[in-house]
Amino acid sequence: MSEIVTAAMVVIGDEILSGRTKDRNIGHLADMMTAVGIDLKEVRIVPDDEPAIVEAVNALRARFTYLFTTGGIGPTHDDITADAIAAAFGVPCEYDEAAYRLLEEHYAARGIEFTEARKRMARMPRGAGHIENPISVAPGFSIGNVFVMAGVPSIFQAMLDNVVPTLKTGAKLLSVSIPSPLPEGTIGGPLGDVQKEHPDTIIGSYPKYVDGKFWTELVIRSRSEESLKGAKAAVEAMLDELLKRN
Amino acid sequence: MSEIVTAAMVVIGDEILSGRTKDRNIGHLADMMTAVGIDLKEVRIVPDDEPAIVEAVNALRARFTYLFTTGGIGPTHDDITADAIAAAFGVPCEYDEAAYRLLEEHYAARGIEFTEARKRMARMPRGAGHIENPISVAPGFSIGNVFVMAGVPSIFQAMLDNVVPTLKTGAKLLSVSIPSPLPEGTIGGPLGDVQKEHPDTIIGSYPKYVDGKFWTELVIRSRSEESLKGAKAAVEAMLDELLKRN
Repeated sequence: MSEIVTAAMVVIGDEILSGRTKDRNIGHLADMMTAVGIDLKEVRIVPDDEPAIVEAVNALRARFTYLFTTGGIGPTHDDITADAIAAAFGVPCEYDEAAYRLLEEHYAARGIEFTEARKRMARMPRGAGHIENPISVAPGFSIGNVFVMAGVPSIFQAMLDNVVPTLKTGAKLLSVSIPSPLPEGTIGGPLGDVQKEHPDTIIGSYPKYVDGKFWTELVIRSRSEESLKGAKAAVEAMLDELLKRN
Repeated sequence: MSEIVTAAMVVIGDEILSGRTKDRNIGHLADMMTAVGIDLKEVRIVPDDEPAIVEAVNALRARFTYLFTTGGIGPTHDDITADAIAAAFGVPCEYDEAAYRLLEEHYAARGIEFTEARKRMARMPRGAGHIENPISVAPGFSIGNVFVMAGVPSIFQAMLDNVVPTLKTGAKLLSVSIPSPLPEGTIGGPLGDVQKEHPDTIIGSYPKYVDGKFWTELVIRSRSEESLKGAKAAVEAMLDELLKRN
């Protein structure tokens, strides 16, 4: 069995906490991590506030294999992520020469002024590596096990596509979904017994409420195909039994 | 000026972290808090794991006026929120008599068996009060400054509608949005100056990327209408000046 690889995420931005912008990056990262067999274990959404960012980053980078952040790396005064990450690592935040040249050339080629604001996007913690940005050029960066990316979903997704192939990935978590017309209240007891008998799986139960009716989706997850099959057979037998009685 | 009232949220559930379910409750809570003048300051998404829930709940309930949780209060073995909240408060988790009777009558009236699994939904930390559930009866609960609600969005929203009128609310945060065709890189420097000159406001800059073009939405927030007006005039004057030059 492969190593367990874990991840966490910090979403940075007042606009998410105020409701003005609805996050679309958490679900995307969750899908991508599941696809490559990395367990996303915690997500925090924090405001544009350096102490809050530093606390979240330091708590999570110590605990998990990887930490991904989104937001706060643009050119304006409220973009403080680079400074906060540098503070979290105790290193200076400074202009990165390669990023500076990249941006300088990009704007020069387009006849756009390389303003102080745009220059801010070349700032990163000393020692950071670039994450390429195929959409708007200004790179994200990585330092230690922390990957710092943009909040605009299209740019975040493009950056993440560049990061994922560099990660060590775990055994992929296999899953199977079993829908049932029976409500959770009927399934709950016997399902708990099945879970106990199949400790190498994680069995989740998700109530669905559609058009005034409850039904239940049962999802079995495991890193072992054999364990998954065994638990699936047990859940199906349990459901058959309950359906006969109800 | 009224008191500042703050809030945090803990979203509980493996299904959100695996990407299988996309959260829709964070954005709703954020909107509701902003509408009533409460500052949502942090959100954490944690798995169905008691130590993780306890840690998040105890960290956030100590720090903010209110803490809201969603998820994990159904009838199945993976619904461990009631136990985790009780553990966080150091009180026993036990059958609540009123909730038990409510559920017993509800199922009896419908000829549905009151299974052990369904009885689980009557368990809550000793001393908790009910949050009424007009959709599926099983109540949420509150203890101290923590409000524990369902994860199914329609039930969460109905429960929250019952909670919000009981909260003390802060001075409403006023906001005004100013769209600009100029990119952040052009606006960033002068906008930072405007922010410094209007400390009683929070000025956010949100890059938009649509159809290959960048534009910028500037949002000014303040608890004072006068401060908001002053900053708005300054931002508009700044944008006029930049548009003349660009």
